[in-house]
Amino acid sequence: MELVASEIDIGTHLPTVLLNGADAEELGVHPLDRVQITTDGTTTIGIVEMTDELVAPGTLGVTRRLGHVEGRVEVTHAPKPNSARYVRKKLDDRELEADEIRAIVRDIEADRLNDVELSAYVSGVYSNGMSDAETTHLTEAMAEVGDHISWDDPVVADKHSIGGVAGNRVSPILVPIVAAAGVKIPKTSSRAVTSPAGTADTMEVFCGVEFSVGEIRDIVAETNGCLVWGGAVDLSPVDDKIIRAENPLSLDPTGQLIASVLSKKHCAGSTHVVVDVPYGEGSKVDGTAEARELADDFERVGDHLGMEVTPAVSPGDEPIGRGIGPVLEARDVLAVLAGDGPEDLRLKAVRLAEVLLDDCDVDADAAEILESGRAEAAFRDIVAAQGGDPDVTLADLVPGDERATIEADRSGVVTHVDNRLVSELGRRAGAPKDQRAGLTLARRVDDEVSAGDELFTVYAETASKLEDAVALADRAEPVRVRSREEAMVERV
Amino acid sequence: MELVASEIDIGTHLPTVLLNGADAEELGVHPLDRVQITTDGTTTIGIVEMTDELVAPGTLGVTRRLGHVEGRVEVTHAPKPNSARYVRKKLDDRELEADEIRAIVRDIEADRLNDVELSAYVSGVYSNGMSDAETTHLTEAMAEVGDHISWDDPVVADKHSIGGVAGNRVSPILVPIVAAAGVKIPKTSSRAVTSPAGTADTMEVFCGVEFSVGEIRDIVAETNGCLVWGGAVDLSPVDDKIIRAENPLSLDPTGQLIASVLSKKHCAGSTHVVVDVPYGEGSKVDGTAEARELADDFERVGDHLGMEVTPAVSPGDEPIGRGIGPVLEARDVLAVLAGDGPEDLRLKAVRLAEVLLDDCDVDADAAEILESGRAEAAFRDIVAAQGGDPDVTLADLVPGDERATIEADRSGVVTHVDNRLVSELGRRAGAPKDQRAGLTLARRVDDEVSAGDELFTVYAETASKLEDAVALADRAEPVRVRSREEAMVERV
Repeated sequence: MELVASEIDIGTHLPTVLLNGADAEELGVHPLDRVQITTDGTTTIGIVEMTDELVAPGTLGVTRRLGHVEGRVEVTHAPKPNSARYVRKKLDDRELEADEIRAIVRDIEADRLNDVELSAYVSGVYSNGMSDAETTHLTEAMAEVGDHISWDDPVVADKHSIGGVAGNRVSPILVPIVAAAGVKIPKTSSRAVTSPAGTADTMEVFCGVEFSVGEIRDIVAETNGCLVWGGAVDLSPVDDKIIRAENPLSLDPTGQLIASVLSKKHCAGSTHVVVDVPYGEGSKVDGTAEARELADDFERVGDHLGMEVTPAVSPGDEPIGRGIGPVLEARDVLAVLAGDGPEDLRLKAVRLAEVLLDDCDVDADAAEILESGRAEAAFRDIVAAQGGDPDVTLADLVPGDERATIEADRSGVVTHVDNRLVSELGRRAGAPKDQRAGLTLARRVDDEVSAGDELFTVYAETASKLEDAVALADRAEPVRVRSREEAMVERV
Repeated sequence: MELVASEIDIGTHLPTVLLNGADAEELGVHPLDRVQITTDGTTTIGIVEMTDELVAPGTLGVTRRLGHVEGRVEVTHAPKPNSARYVRKKLDDRELEADEIRAIVRDIEADRLNDVELSAYVSGVYSNGMSDAETTHLTEAMAEVGDHISWDDPVVADKHSIGGVAGNRVSPILVPIVAAAGVKIPKTSSRAVTSPAGTADTMEVFCGVEFSVGEIRDIVAETNGCLVWGGAVDLSPVDDKIIRAENPLSLDPTGQLIASVLSKKHCAGSTHVVVDVPYGEGSKVDGTAEARELADDFERVGDHLGMEVTPAVSPGDEPIGRGIGPVLEARDVLAVLAGDGPEDLRLKAVRLAEVLLDDCDVDADAAEILESGRAEAAFRDIVAAQGGDPDVTLADLVPGDERATIEADRSGVVTHVDNRLVSELGRRAGAPKDQRAGLTLARRVDDEVSAGDELFTVYAETASKLEDAVALADRAEPVRVRSREEAMVERV
């Protein structure tokens, strides 16, 4: 039918068109169906929403994502995209072929799937899982639509942690160690989604993190490494879109997770990747068997892609380091690089660097590189190359002025420090948006404490956010203290 | 944080609020997260969308579904609704408790779930199925939020077909038979969603179909029956909302289907229901075993609800009756009631009426009621009570003027008449919106045909729609003609 189109902005990222109910009935289309819109010989596909308030009969509201469409247009009912059929196939628990997965990925990338279809895709992958073949196809399809960085070197190192452990700021220590060992390591990291700081947020305390592919090449050429925000380069445009359907139900389907990580590493030109899967209460993976399985999945899919993936698992049932929040984590990083700082963070970074260098077949001593100050020098080179102050000191990294210390209300032993609660505390305090907000942990699991001992200190930039965080700390129990007897057996 | 709210209309049915990206970052919220909005001591929950174009930093765009919110408001990050957790539980293939299902149903009813969550719910139920207990809880929860019609009679009959068979207009024949037998049968039907006519669309050719609960009570008091559109009464408000997430992938999860049907029957006050499950190529259920299983599921869930459900299966691999489309089906109905008309439609209506009357323990002869003209009289009474002309004749029911006859291009035998293609043809011709559009089938499966014999005739109200339908008829093969030999074994 012929309608008169005019532009309307409803703030959607999809190629939505708005139809009056009467016209939708005449066309025989329902909400979220597709229509084909033809004008001057060109056709586009729109996703239907119905509204009698915003558009009158005879008119078509065209959102900007569809391109500029004005005036008389011919509108007909268009078929569903093929990818919708493949999503249904996944919900039927049938294995998807490579071209079917590619069709889904391309339609997600081009915003051709509506929220219902995108969510059904994530739900299907979550509920029914993916075979190694499917995950490999998905990784390849996701890599195909991303930007690529290429290197002349036969060995390009990389590292990934699946996250979930507060304060686990290993990369800013590991990357300089590996770079100082003479191995290129173009590390891209994420910003926080639900945590108080991603590695990119922590690095932003020191220097810029948003660079183009060309700039990344220059930084790495100069320093062997970089510590940049992956979101500034389009290594995985699909990943950013899928998160919309993962976030509401906190779904993180394994096949999707592996494909997201490895497609980015593939696009970054990495050949050797160590993948760290922390496990334990309060982390993303509950048990060690599950962690080993996931780590192995990474390795197998890496194999299919011709990428050397070294799987690693680590205890993740308490935070790593003392500081939580961008500035407080930056302090830990700088301290460790200077030969001081939290022992657990230093050990973990050195161990993962050792594993990665070994995997790359490079004869270098990670601990020695750190102790000798070569890692610190490499870090300062990277900071300088990324536009920061290479002479930064701990005195420059000042946490928020609003502070509250939380003390043990009984004597005993620390039995658990909960990653999720600690992260939630850090966010309440204002991190990552307020760089100086967060907390420092004074105790680790197994530490003896007396009533009145400091458990942790919260830092904020405003009094009201400090209050919010302290309210949560009083209500919940981020650091669990029990008697020695209670620690032996927990009632549930 | 404090924001200045102002109303904005983006045509959504959800309580959406629009945030500028900077404010969303400050609040730490992502698209589809919830925020709590407090003003003058009252709080509401909004679902977040981000747009830098429509709202400036410091302002909050409030859609009308949220109620009237203007001026300074306090906005904080609100937790996800509990129902989101239960949806995830279903995706984990864990059985849901009654109160968990109730929470999901109530949140859907109140538009508190976004498209991603709604779709994940449908996907989870589709992929992982529902136990009898879950389906029973779902039926009860859906019935709780619907309007109820109550009757003094101990026996109130009803009938449902799961659909998928073109032209299958049994209800307008069965209802008058049952009503004439002295049993109340307050039948509500649907309009077409993807077919060329629902029973409500066909009845609308004769009379009104949109009535309130009070009017339905009056019609049934007068005539023992009614044939009205269920959508005009709020028997199942949730059903209409779930369809939004079922439509894009054509999902129709069994548990949801059973709960939708039986909750409506429960709200309509029915005590005895015959459920017809057609099976076969081109219908909704492929095989007879699957059909029997589904029919049994209906019976078992009915049992739990204290409702007598009689399961029935029927061959559904070709359309029933000759006409497809509102007016053409109305002609079949009137002809059968007058003792003429398509034999298959007459037989099926009589048989289902027999089964239902038997189930109701009523000693009545359905065939005799039809043959004697008592069913026709009852039908005309219902038409009159619903505001139509009780003296309507076939001559009043004129199909569209634009006509095209499709002939066999070879001699042989009809091996298949495809419900889906026939329905698609009817829709292309303009049905159900154009009441007089559709087609009449001249041949049934197993009929011998010679090249040049009429297979079917398409009717439309406009030449362009006729053209569209004929183009599809030429391209596809709604009526399959094969040689006797080919009919024995089909190459695939």
